Amino acid sequence: MSTKYADDSLALHTDLYQINMTESYWADGIHERKAVFELFFRNLPFGNGYAVFAGLERILDYLKGFRFSESDIAYLREELGYKEDFLEYLKDVRFTGDVYSMVEGELVFANEPILRVETTLAEAQLVETALLNIVNFQTLIATKASRIKQVVKDEVVMEFGSRRAHEMDAAMWGARAAVIGGVEATSNVRAGKRFGIPVAGTHAHAMVQAYKSEYEAFHSYAKRHKDCVFLVDTYNTLKIGVPTAIQVAKELGDKINFVGVRLDSGDIAFLSKETRRMLDEAGFKDAKVIVSNDLDEYTILNLKAQGAKVDVWGIGTKLITAYDQPALGAVYKIVSIENENGEMEDTIKISSNAEKVTTPGQKKLYRIIDRENGKAQGDYITMCDENPQDEERIKMFHPVHTFISKFVTNFDAVNLHVQVVEKGNIIYKNPTLNEMRAYAQSNLNLLWDEYKRSLNPEEYPVDLSQKCWDNKMRNIQEVKEKVDAYSLR
Amino acid sequence: MSTKYADDSLALHTDLYQINMTESYWADGIHERKAVFELFFRNLPFGNGYAVFAGLERILDYLKGFRFSESDIAYLREELGYKEDFLEYLKDVRFTGDVYSMVEGELVFANEPILRVETTLAEAQLVETALLNIVNFQTLIATKASRIKQVVKDEVVMEFGSRRAHEMDAAMWGARAAVIGGVEATSNVRAGKRFGIPVAGTHAHAMVQAYKSEYEAFHSYAKRHKDCVFLVDTYNTLKIGVPTAIQVAKELGDKINFVGVRLDSGDIAFLSKETRRMLDEAGFKDAKVIVSNDLDEYTILNLKAQGAKVDVWGIGTKLITAYDQPALGAVYKIVSIENENGEMEDTIKISSNAEKVTTPGQKKLYRIIDRENGKAQGDYITMCDENPQDEERIKMFHPVHTFISKFVTNFDAVNLHVQVVEKGNIIYKNPTLNEMRAYAQSNLNLLWDEYKRSLNPEEYPVDLSQKCWDNKMRNIQEVKEKVDAYSLR
Repeated sequence: MSTKYADDSLALHTDLYQINMTESYWADGIHERKAVFELFFRNLPFGNGYAVFAGLERILDYLKGFRFSESDIAYLREELGYKEDFLEYLKDVRFTGDVYSMVEGELVFANEPILRVETTLAEAQLVETALLNIVNFQTLIATKASRIKQVVKDEVVMEFGSRRAHEMDAAMWGARAAVIGGVEATSNVRAGKRFGIPVAGTHAHAMVQAYKSEYEAFHSYAKRHKDCVFLVDTYNTLKIGVPTAIQVAKELGDKINFVGVRLDSGDIAFLSKETRRMLDEAGFKDAKVIVSNDLDEYTILNLKAQGAKVDVWGIGTKLITAYDQPALGAVYKIVSIENENGEMEDTIKISSNAEKVTTPGQKKLYRIIDRENGKAQGDYITMCDENPQDEERIKMFHPVHTFISKFVTNFDAVNLHVQVVEKGNIIYKNPTLNEMRAYAQSNLNLLWDEYKRSLNPEEYPVDLSQKCWDNKMRNIQEVKEKVDAYSLR
Repeated sequence: MSTKYADDSLALHTDLYQINMTESYWADGIHERKAVFELFFRNLPFGNGYAVFAGLERILDYLKGFRFSESDIAYLREELGYKEDFLEYLKDVRFTGDVYSMVEGELVFANEPILRVETTLAEAQLVETALLNIVNFQTLIATKASRIKQVVKDEVVMEFGSRRAHEMDAAMWGARAAVIGGVEATSNVRAGKRFGIPVAGTHAHAMVQAYKSEYEAFHSYAKRHKDCVFLVDTYNTLKIGVPTAIQVAKELGDKINFVGVRLDSGDIAFLSKETRRMLDEAGFKDAKVIVSNDLDEYTILNLKAQGAKVDVWGIGTKLITAYDQPALGAVYKIVSIENENGEMEDTIKISSNAEKVTTPGQKKLYRIIDRENGKAQGDYITMCDENPQDEERIKMFHPVHTFISKFVTNFDAVNLHVQVVEKGNIIYKNPTLNEMRAYAQSNLNLLWDEYKRSLNPEEYPVDLSQKCWDNKMRNIQEVKEKVDAYSLR
C-alpha cells in the first residue's frame, strides 16, 4: 500500500546514511568544504578483460534535476523526525559542482577512476548512491553485450530480455546499455521510443495457438506485415513449423518479404542446420535463421563450434540480468578534502581487505597509445598536476607487484576524462547511441587480442605514476602511525 | 540522446511482437475473442523449496493506468510505420477483463498458476511483458529475502543494496519485495517514503575520513543524532574503531542511545566475537553488532557455525540482485480461447523441451491442508468447474511420475486465487506491507520443515486433478495427430 507521499523526485533515491552525514556536516559548518570523490570498481565482471562504461546520460539528467521536493521534505519531517533547521537547508540544495567523466562507450578497467566529482562535501555525499546505482547496472550490461558481440562477431544480436529484467528501469536502461556494448536492436518498444533504438519482433506461440495452426497464423500475420519472420516451434519445428513457413512464403511470393524463421526451443545446433538446409532447398537462400532460448556467449561459442547456422541471435535473460555475474561492484570514495585553512588534503581508507585500500588524491587517467602500432600500452593514473605527455619516457609498473615494470617512449597520452558538469551546469552534449556504440567498437581496436579473449584474458596494465604511488605509500604510513599511537595511549 | 517522444506511459513497455500480433487479431476481427492466460514459472529459484509471490500491487496500478498515450501513438505512426486504422483502434484500448491472482506473500511452487488473466485476446497479449517483468523480479527478491530470513531466524535483516541494484526501479521495488519476504528495513529513503518501509543507516567511511579521526566523527554524529551506530572499520577495527566507539559512548553517556557498532570488512566471524567481547567488558551488553560485507544465506550460515556474534545483518548485493540466480523464469501462456461459435476451447503448446509443454484449460489452484495437523499436503490444480472440497477423498499424484500418489481425506481445500480485477475495475484492496510479511510468515508454518531447508529441500507436491491430467493428455494426443497428418500430406 503506497503512502500519502508522491514519488515525485529522485533526491531521496539514496541511502539514509548520506542524509545523516550531511546533517552532521551541516551542523558543524563543514558541509560546504570542497571534496573530491572518485567512482571506480575493483574487479572486472565475468572474468572479462575490459568493461564498457555506460550511464553518463542518466547521471547528467539526475544531477540536473537534483532537488528535494516538498513531499521529500514533508516525509523527512513527519516520518523520520528531521528538524526544521536542517530541512530548511536541504530544501535549497542543488548540485553545484564539477564532474569529470569518461564518455559512454569508453573501455574501462579495474581500479581506475570512471568519474570524479568535485563539489561540496554535502552534495558529493547526497548523490553517491544514485551515481553508483546507475553506473553499476549500465556498465555491467554494456560489458556483457560487448562480450557476447565478441563471440557473435558479424551476425546480428537483438536484446529480448524485458520479461526477465529487474523491473522496468532495468529493461529500459539495460536495452540502451546493450546497444552501447554492441547490440543492434531491442524488443522493448518503450526503449525504442525513448532512445531511438531499432525495435524488433514478430509473433509468439500464442498467435499460432489462437489460430490453431501455423498455416492460418502465418497467413494472418502476412496480411498486415510486409516483413515476415515466422515462429516455427509451437508444435514441431521440422515436421510442421519450417515446412509451413516455406509453404506460406511460396504461396505469398512477392506479396511479403520473407525475412526468415525463428527457433525458440530444442537443440539449436541441430535444428538450425536442418532449417538452413530446408530453406536453401526451397530456394530461400536469403531467409534468415533467428534463434533464441537462454543464450549467452558460452552457448553461442559452443553452438558455433558445432556448426550452427544462425544469422540473428536473440538474447534475453542472460544479457539483461548479466546472469553469471549480476553485479558490478563500483564504489565511490573520498580522495581529497578541504581542511580548515582552505587547503586540499588527501585522504585514504585502510582496510583489512587489502584490495579495499583506496588511492588518495585528486587524479587523472591517461591511456598510453604506442605511436608505432596504434595499440594501447596500458592506462596510467597520475596526480592532477602531472601530464605524462610532458615526459620523453614514462615508467609503467604494476601497482601491487611493482617489480613488473616497463619504460614507454614514443607514445600518445590520451586524457580519458572529459569535464561534463561545471558549477552545476551540464556542459556535455550526449552523442547518439550509434555514435557511442561505434566509439566502443573503435576503442576495442586499440586493444591487443589477448585482452579481448572471453576466457582468461591477459591483465591489461592500469598503473600509478611514481608520484601517485609515493603519495599512496605516504598516506598508508601516516594512518599506520595514527593507529599505533592510539593503541599505545 | 533521448528522442522527442515523452516517456509518459507504460503501454509500450512491451515486446514489439505483442503489438504485431494484436494488429493481426484486430485485422481478422478476432481481437475481442475471450482468452485465458496463466502466469507461472517452471523451476523454483536458488534450489529453494518454495517461492514467495510479490508484485500484485504494481500489476494492479499498471492495469488501471493502461492506455497508449498520444506520444505512444505518434511514435508507432512516425517511427514504426503502423497504419492509421490500427492506431485508431489502439488509442481506445483499455484493460477490460478479469484477473484472478494469488495475494502477495503467498507461497508459490513450480508449475502452478500465480495469476490468471481472462480478457480479450488483444488485451491479454498487450499486457504480457509488463506482468512478467513485474512478477519475475519482485517474486525473485521476496523469495531470496525469505531464504535469508530462514537462516538468520530471530535477528534483524536490513536491505542495503541500492547501489548494486539493477537501476532505480529495482532498488525501490526490490526493497519492497524484500520486506514481503521477511526483511525489517531498507537503507533506500525513497522506498521508505513511497512504501512506508522503516529506513536505516548511520554514517559511512567518508565521514570518518572527512573528520580525519573516528573520535571527531563519532562525536559530530552524536551531536545531531540520538540513536548512534558507529562504523568502526575505516582504519583498524579492533585497534582504533571499537575502542573509540566505546570511548565516545562512555563520554556521552545518557546524551545518546548507543545502539551499537557496524563492521563492514574483514573476517566477520573473528571481528564480531572480539567486538562483542570488548563491548561487554565495557559494560555495553545491549549494544548491537551490525555487520555487512557481501553477505548472503550461505555466508551467514557459515558465520553462525563459527559462532559469530551478530545482532543485525545488513544485506546488499546478494539480496537485491538475487546474485546466485538473478532471474525467475515465469512465463505467461494461453490455455483457452473462444472459438468462432463463442465457445471456449482449450489450447496447448508442445515443445521438444518436455518441461515447456503447457497444461491446457481454465484452471483453479487449491492448497490442501490436513485438518489434523494443520500442515499442507500439497497444492492441487483443477479445472475451473471442479471443487475438491466437494469430495470426501482426493487422489493426489505426481504430474510426471504418476505412480507416485496418495489419497487424502479430512482436508481443507483453500482456494489460492482471489479475483482482483473485474471487468477492468480493481476490486482488491492491498494489505499493508507488514500484513503481507506476516502472511508470508504464517504461510511458512503450513509447510513441513523438509520443504524449508535451504539446501536440497524435498519437493512439495503440485498435482493435477485427474480431470485436468486427462484433459492435458487428450490435448497432447490431438496435437500429435495434427503433426502426423501434416507430415503425411
